[in-house]
Amino acid sequence: MGEHHVVVVGGGFGGIQLVHDLHGPDVRITLIDQRNHHLFQPLLYQVATTLLATSEIAWPIRHLFRDRADVTTLLAEVKGVDRAAQQVILADGQRVAYDTLVLATGARHAYFGHDEWEPHAPGLKTLEDATTIRRRMLLAFEQAELEEDPARRAALLTFCIIGAGPTGVELAGIISDLAKKALVKEFRRIDTRNARILLIEAGPRVLPVFSPELSAYTAHELERLGVEVRTGTPVTNCDAEGVTIGTELVPSRTMIWAAGVQASPAAAWLDAPADRAGRVKVEPDLTVPGDANIFVIGDTAAASTADGKPVPGVAPAAKQQGSYVAKVIKARLAGRPALPPFAYRHLGNLATVGRSVAVIEYEGFKLKGWLAWWIWGLAHIYFLIGTRSRLAVAMNWLWIFLIGHHSARLITQRDHRRAPPPPTPPAE
Amino acid sequence: MGEHHVVVVGGGFGGIQLVHDLHGPDVRITLIDQRNHHLFQPLLYQVATTLLATSEIAWPIRHLFRDRADVTTLLAEVKGVDRAAQQVILADGQRVAYDTLVLATGARHAYFGHDEWEPHAPGLKTLEDATTIRRRMLLAFEQAELEEDPARRAALLTFCIIGAGPTGVELAGIISDLAKKALVKEFRRIDTRNARILLIEAGPRVLPVFSPELSAYTAHELERLGVEVRTGTPVTNCDAEGVTIGTELVPSRTMIWAAGVQASPAAAWLDAPADRAGRVKVEPDLTVPGDANIFVIGDTAAASTADGKPVPGVAPAAKQQGSYVAKVIKARLAGRPALPPFAYRHLGNLATVGRSVAVIEYEGFKLKGWLAWWIWGLAHIYFLIGTRSRLAVAMNWLWIFLIGHHSARLITQRDHRRAPPPPTPPAE
Repeated sequence: MGEHHVVVVGGGFGGIQLVHDLHGPDVRITLIDQRNHHLFQPLLYQVATTLLATSEIAWPIRHLFRDRADVTTLLAEVKGVDRAAQQVILADGQRVAYDTLVLATGARHAYFGHDEWEPHAPGLKTLEDATTIRRRMLLAFEQAELEEDPARRAALLTFCIIGAGPTGVELAGIISDLAKKALVKEFRRIDTRNARILLIEAGPRVLPVFSPELSAYTAHELERLGVEVRTGTPVTNCDAEGVTIGTELVPSRTMIWAAGVQASPAAAWLDAPADRAGRVKVEPDLTVPGDANIFVIGDTAAASTADGKPVPGVAPAAKQQGSYVAKVIKARLAGRPALPPFAYRHLGNLATVGRSVAVIEYEGFKLKGWLAWWIWGLAHIYFLIGTRSRLAVAMNWLWIFLIGHHSARLITQRDHRRAPPPPTPPAE
Repeated sequence: MGEHHVVVVGGGFGGIQLVHDLHGPDVRITLIDQRNHHLFQPLLYQVATTLLATSEIAWPIRHLFRDRADVTTLLAEVKGVDRAAQQVILADGQRVAYDTLVLATGARHAYFGHDEWEPHAPGLKTLEDATTIRRRMLLAFEQAELEEDPARRAALLTFCIIGAGPTGVELAGIISDLAKKALVKEFRRIDTRNARILLIEAGPRVLPVFSPELSAYTAHELERLGVEVRTGTPVTNCDAEGVTIGTELVPSRTMIWAAGVQASPAAAWLDAPADRAGRVKVEPDLTVPGDANIFVIGDTAAASTADGKPVPGVAPAAKQQGSYVAKVIKARLAGRPALPPFAYRHLGNLATVGRSVAVIEYEGFKLKGWLAWWIWGLAHIYFLIGTRSRLAVAMNWLWIFLIGHHSARLITQRDHRRAPPPPTPPAE
């Protein structure tokens, strides 16, 4: 075949945007992902807290590209890259040859050297993470309803979120809303308003990348929602008993990790230079040093802005990088001169605080409260894929807004009947 | 407390209807279920085949009764009944005392003495069953796309449904529709139209409880949809290689069991007389022989109609029994004379065949085709719980009808990346 074969590993924001933008008569694309769906991660916390169902924020990848005869989608796990042979190595041993390779494999959670904390405090990066957190949270209330010992009951009704970036803030706000409002009428033996929701942040303030003014507003809003905000002390332990903040043990059965990320193993596959979080140190055109036909984009790349700051691991950055690489490949194939380096355009910081308030920050412009929440909502609906999802999510939010019900509250996984205290990861 | 305590075990159609109907100043109710949700089983096949999402056909039980201060909901597994002490025994050892006990614990699949077939051919009774079948089915296509060996690819693209009652017919029709139409554009290396869908029935015809005319029509429709209908020969084996029909081995990786049910362990808990399928042989007023304060209803009871025929294990029967027992309890508490025995009113047989055709039979009246499908659809939407579900399901069906897309096609479970050939049940 005379076509140029581009292999893209990863169907997240970066990979999907690249495939979307990259079409031409001489190009064929193979998109490989270890999952069958593209996930809209910014709304994942809403699945974890029962506001939305999984099918509303995820779309089968091959369905997205069904009309692209030039795109082949493969569900497979990548185990390595043979740069000399120009092949991607799959878990089952099969190899996929490429002319150009793009790694867009994202990030996973980091536990600061304490991987043993992970089974006790799962992160929130995938749909399975979200349904696991949802299940543990709902089971905690169910078990508390049955529990006769007051100390164990109190631990079941204590929820700890570790890390006060947007994800942690968003989780804390909704869980508190559930406990203090939505679930109150449904339990007879416990009063869910007695639940404690702790948001724990090692640094001095919540939402550290936002301005101090919005941090303070957010902390105040969270406290108004019933969240206990604990800043300035790091978590020193996390096990079946609970979380240790500094030297204080907080007995808890439901702990969620929102505190640190590390890159996928892309740098290891490539044997390429990486930063402390494992991100590949890419050239200004997002290629791997020494290999102009391998690009790395998204959360797994360490790219820099024009003034030398790191490009943040956010969805708009991955999408912009995907678009950029598509342009670079097209220019190369057309024999056009090289494009200028990648230039990241920051579109602002957004976070919701509970069900009806948000904070938005864009180049010095700050907005908070109810209007910010509506803008946040519209922006997120806009960026969903497809009319059906937009309608479903909008209808869901409207229903919650009008009626107050959380609809996606099913415990559907196998272990639903067992106590939350942690089994080892494979049984989770 | 002077109140009469009714303990209901099972939040299916029978239990929910009973609790719904049983309210009075002197009664308090404890409803125990091993899952947190009530499931609308007639539409479960649509979750298994990606037409609907789990949250559209299941509702948290405690949410349904949030406005009933007299109803306490407990998520727990029942392990036994102490009839002498009048207590229900939970899995964790706790006991719940009752004045009146109602067991509405449903049915599970039976494998005719071959329980070792179960991991290879799961049944369809719970949400976990549905998502397991969905995952295996989608993974089979994904694996076929990657598979280079033609024989293994053919086995991956062979789907066997065992048992041609309504559930088997409904599954076969939609899976065939997926393979022959909806998925065709999404795969590049395989042609999903090459998939084989076999519906295997030991008896002489499909839909054995329907009239021969509608059986024949259904078989013809299924064949038109691309299903291979195999009647008259039982399955003699089922393992990792495939299904053996009589003496013919059909290599297959996705097998679904829709062939036999047995009752829950209620009869064992009660040490009560049971029929061959384990159903409790109840008195005409649905009580347990010798224990007027224990009722058994729904699929786990062997009740008879006025002319001595067995009451079928269908949703309307369970609901009628739930209503009846609520009336009996209320009459007793009011000191009124005993009610006449339970009288089952058969509301007809319904089954869908593919996406747009159904068969309906009611007291000799037969309807088939497109009109039957619309009536089937309206009836099922009517019996869903709550406006939100009705809107969501109606919108979903309308979307599928207009656009043809199956939206709930996510592989969300942990093992999504592994080959379907069966692990042992706990790892499933």
